[in-house]
Amino acid sequence: MYLGRVIGRVWATVKDPGLATQRLLLVQPLTPEGQPTGKRLVVTDAMGAGAGELVYWSKGKESSFPFLPTEVPTEMTIVGIVDAVNVDRGA
Amino acid sequence: MYLGRVIGRVWATVKDPGLATQRLLLVQPLTPEGQPTGKRLVVTDAMGAGAGELVYWSKGKESSFPFLPTEVPTEMTIVGIVDAVNVDRGA
Amino acid sequence: MYLGRVIGRVWATVKDPGLATQRLLLVQPLTPEGQPTGKRLVVTDAMGAGAGELVYWSKGKESSFPFLPTEVPTEMTIVGIVDAVNVDRGA
Amino acid sequence: MYLGRVIGRVWATVKDPGLATQRLLLVQPLTPEGQPTGKRLVVTDAMGAGAGELVYWSKGKESSFPFLPTEVPTEMTIVGIVDAVNVDRGA
Amino acid sequence: MYLGRVIGRVWATVKDPGLATQRLLLVQPLTPEGQPTGKRLVVTDAMGAGAGELVYWSKGKESSFPFLPTEVPTEMTIVGIVDAVNVDRGA
Repeated sequence: MYLGRVIGRVWATVKDPGLATQRLLLVQPLTPEGQPTGKRLVVTDAMGAGAGELVYWSKGKESSFPFLPTEVPTEMTIVGIVDAVNVDRGA
Repeated sequence: MYLGRVIGRVWATVKDPGLATQRLLLVQPLTPEGQPTGKRLVVTDAMGAGAGELVYWSKGKESSFPFLPTEVPTEMTIVGIVDAVNVDRGA
Repeated sequence: MYLGRVIGRVWATVKDPGLATQRLLLVQPLTPEGQPTGKRLVVTDAMGAGAGELVYWSKGKESSFPFLPTEVPTEMTIVGIVDAVNVDRGA
Repeated sequence: MYLGRVIGRVWATVKDPGLATQRLLLVQPLTPEGQPTGKRLVVTDAMGAGAGELVYWSKGKESSFPFLPTEVPTEMTIVGIVDAVNVDRGA
Repeated sequence: MYLGRVIGRVWATVKDPGLATQRLLLVQPLTPEGQPTGKRLVVTDAMGAGAGELVYWSKGKESSFPFLPTEVPTEMTIVGIVDAVNVDRGA
């Protein structure tokens, strides 16, 4: 999974029926220390994440598991809201 | 999912039967602010997107879900037409 | 899908039974304008593409669909031969 | 699979039910010679790996196989703890 | 598929049961001309490839096909041993 922060939203009226009830969030990927890294992405959300929250998301077919038995055509889904990240000293 | 703009088309007479009724569009990936980012791609379209429209597409096996039960050998499909993108202030 | 040109072949006597009847082609990825971009790849071919032809291929599990019900262990397959690519003016 | 070292942990109270009993570890990818290479990642763990251990992980849908029949929405899972890596002389 | 050369091995006592009978090989990706390109990887082997051999491997879920019906948690597997690579003149 990947760490990131919710930084915005995307609105779409015309979309695949499988996405009809899904909110689409903008996420900025972060390093474990909280630095931005890489491109911002559009993700679905299985957790009810809010603006500014630190989250992690899953990528690929696995990211559609939380919505089963509905087949949602997404490949990135927020599957957790982060409480804390601990990097071992010396690592 | 990824944001992008429809910038052209690809024509092919000889193609896999699973793609027989699919239009193939050229898409330029964009940042949330609308700047081009990365390589232009050839995608299938489940939404009837037109030239110049801002869209988002899904990548991987999930992108063949909109065409089920037909098994379309595509791994990138437009699944929504964007109305608006909102980036939080300070993000 | 991705655009590219067939630039060679790979021969192998010892290979997985699922690949036994498959030709393996070398492909150079191209931009829509025909410029080489990125690493050359080894792909299977569902279309009978010949040397020098402009093609597009699918990546991931979807690229094994054309061979069903045989489970071919490939993740890149040519699924179309390109007639024309049109990039919109101004794009 | 990819080589890496366990360098920390991620805690989350709110997460997908499929992840409820999973520990989430931070991993630093390494070269075969043990040099850091690329971004640190958040992975699930099927092996009981501890802090500082050298491991390898699987990526993609296959990384959810160790948890079957539970459908865990992960795409990176530690599937082995490394005893030794041998690079051939001259390679 | 991708071209590469077998350059070493990885040993692990503690590993997923699905990997119990699998050898793990180190592979250096190569260009069609035989130049190293990109990171060395840990792969499973369906072909009995030996040290120094030129091989190609499959990536993603397809790379677990050769081991069916066993569900091996691998995403890179050697599926062929290369006899010859031919790049067309002028390509």
